[in-house]
Amino acid sequence: MSHLPAVLEAVWWDEDAVGYIDQRSLPHELVRKRARNADEVVDAIATLAVRGAPCIGIFGAYGVALARESGGQTESFGAAAARIRAARPTAVNLAWAVDRVLAAAPSEYLSEARAIHEEQRAVDRAIAEFGAALLPDDCAVLTHCNTGPLATGGEGTALGIIIAAHRSGKRVHVYVDETRPLLQGARLTTFELAAAGVPATLIADAAAAATMRRNKIAAVIVGADRIASNGDTANKIGTYQLAIGAAHHQIPFYVAAPRSTIDFTLADGETIEIEQRRPEEVRAFGGQAMAPHDFDVYNPAFDVTPGHLISAIVTEYGVLRPPYREAIPDLATRPHLEVLRLSR
Amino acid sequence: MSHLPAVLEAVWWDEDAVGYIDQRSLPHELVRKRARNADEVVDAIATLAVRGAPCIGIFGAYGVALARESGGQTESFGAAAARIRAARPTAVNLAWAVDRVLAAAPSEYLSEARAIHEEQRAVDRAIAEFGAALLPDDCAVLTHCNTGPLATGGEGTALGIIIAAHRSGKRVHVYVDETRPLLQGARLTTFELAAAGVPATLIADAAAAATMRRNKIAAVIVGADRIASNGDTANKIGTYQLAIGAAHHQIPFYVAAPRSTIDFTLADGETIEIEQRRPEEVRAFGGQAMAPHDFDVYNPAFDVTPGHLISAIVTEYGVLRPPYREAIPDLATRPHLEVLRLSR
Repeated sequence: MSHLPAVLEAVWWDEDAVGYIDQRSLPHELVRKRARNADEVVDAIATLAVRGAPCIGIFGAYGVALARESGGQTESFGAAAARIRAARPTAVNLAWAVDRVLAAAPSEYLSEARAIHEEQRAVDRAIAEFGAALLPDDCAVLTHCNTGPLATGGEGTALGIIIAAHRSGKRVHVYVDETRPLLQGARLTTFELAAAGVPATLIADAAAAATMRRNKIAAVIVGADRIASNGDTANKIGTYQLAIGAAHHQIPFYVAAPRSTIDFTLADGETIEIEQRRPEEVRAFGGQAMAPHDFDVYNPAFDVTPGHLISAIVTEYGVLRPPYREAIPDLATRPHLEVLRLSR
Repeated sequence: MSHLPAVLEAVWWDEDAVGYIDQRSLPHELVRKRARNADEVVDAIATLAVRGAPCIGIFGAYGVALARESGGQTESFGAAAARIRAARPTAVNLAWAVDRVLAAAPSEYLSEARAIHEEQRAVDRAIAEFGAALLPDDCAVLTHCNTGPLATGGEGTALGIIIAAHRSGKRVHVYVDETRPLLQGARLTTFELAAAGVPATLIADAAAAATMRRNKIAAVIVGADRIASNGDTANKIGTYQLAIGAAHHQIPFYVAAPRSTIDFTLADGETIEIEQRRPEEVRAFGGQAMAPHDFDVYNPAFDVTPGHLISAIVTEYGVLRPPYREAIPDLATRPHLEVLRLSR
């Protein structure tokens, strides 16, 4: 843990490839890899080597630029871009970023991907600043899954807020859900918090409500994979349970996400497609079988938290409060570059 | 899975030893072992080779009889019995069973331990019968941790109810929480449900609330490690979170436990000692590190669910309903052998 860089770079353009940290090897090894074609880009997304909704978007954007440059394949460029766009179904950022690159002139694909990346950094800084102001000094917060630099390609969303509060001098102690089945909290968030020097404690997911009750949690902060225009939020499985627990204990429940996470065309969360992942993720632990090998499993990657359980949504444009049916459509009309001015 | 006995016997008297199934090897291997002295009895309890509050009680009772018979050790019998009694702090059954054996004449220790075991079987049958009547036909139920034959030495408490409902011809589908950190649900409850032929699905603990919402759960049923006289219930970490989720979804939340689980001297759950277990249980699994090796962990083995979140407590004397401050003290006055008549 002593060789950590000050800021983790999750994905980057690497001449004739897209570079990325293989997050499956963390926290024990920091392995950097190169995706050299569309197949390797899709594979890295599908296997969660690259994960986190905004980070997948940036990676996919670079992936499209890469697919354009590496001509002469058997597959058409359009088909390659479509496969990248569909590599994971739930996160809206991926499709959004791919579409944005494709809307540019082909000669501008790479610079458009770089712009998406740079804007993400600016967006994250703005989210962190708005969100950190919500946290009192000397508090404990609870978070779920991974929403730090590894997740966004910038400074993070929910975890970016926490790290910014810590850097501003506030005393913040973080309780981190391990986040089964893939343990992003135990593997990645712990790594990022240690890198940032924020005091933190790991808990089993099932201990969250007991922790809220006994450890005086001042706020629960999570990220989002997709937000509907009434505030309904799809996020890592377990988020809904945390929101119910927070409401029961009268603890503020915050969602932190860039505007690109919001699907303004969705009236509510009922129709969000929930990715069902492999049963082996639950039947096994770290590749080691736990349950009987043929036992039936229900393994949704996400759940949907109703907007009425969310105290505020922190975006790069500021803090949205209920009623979200008013606050969210209003956000859709803001000019895209406003955030870049805000964050400078 | 094809060689399963019809009824699993978790612990038994084995001439000059106490026999037990080493539950740490399940569900992959059914390993039977023998504890030959007080050290091995204490060790089996402390390492969770034998677990489940009622099963620990029976095992401890046999252990005291064993310690009496294996004279000539360096340690006095009294000290050995005291160590067995204290091998795990939270479950009241262990101390209760050890004290009951010690209250008999020394020549009667073994027969007293056998009586405790036989009474447990009768108690479980009565709980199963009362509880099964609460479940509608064609329903889904959710359970946590392990409360079947392996947990009690009889037919089980919460899982005994579910299995009894299934055997009576009701169509019941069970959702099983994997129950981190030690995965008793994934490893043991799945094994017992498969043995009993009950249709079931394994989920991550964090998926419980989403499952309640999407899969029309008709009841949540859990066991208990200790119940105070106002109904506050200490049980496996995660139980409190399930009770909050059940209340949010207006799903009945049932606790199933024998009278011996109730601590009539406790006014409420505030003073129940919560065992804190090793950080490695959360940082790793099966010896495989997940989180950074020095990361701080909060790992309570139990949490306390307030009585007001519990719809009913199913005992061998019948179904207790709120207000528990009346129903539970009333239970204390029932004669001990009533249950044996009830269950025949």
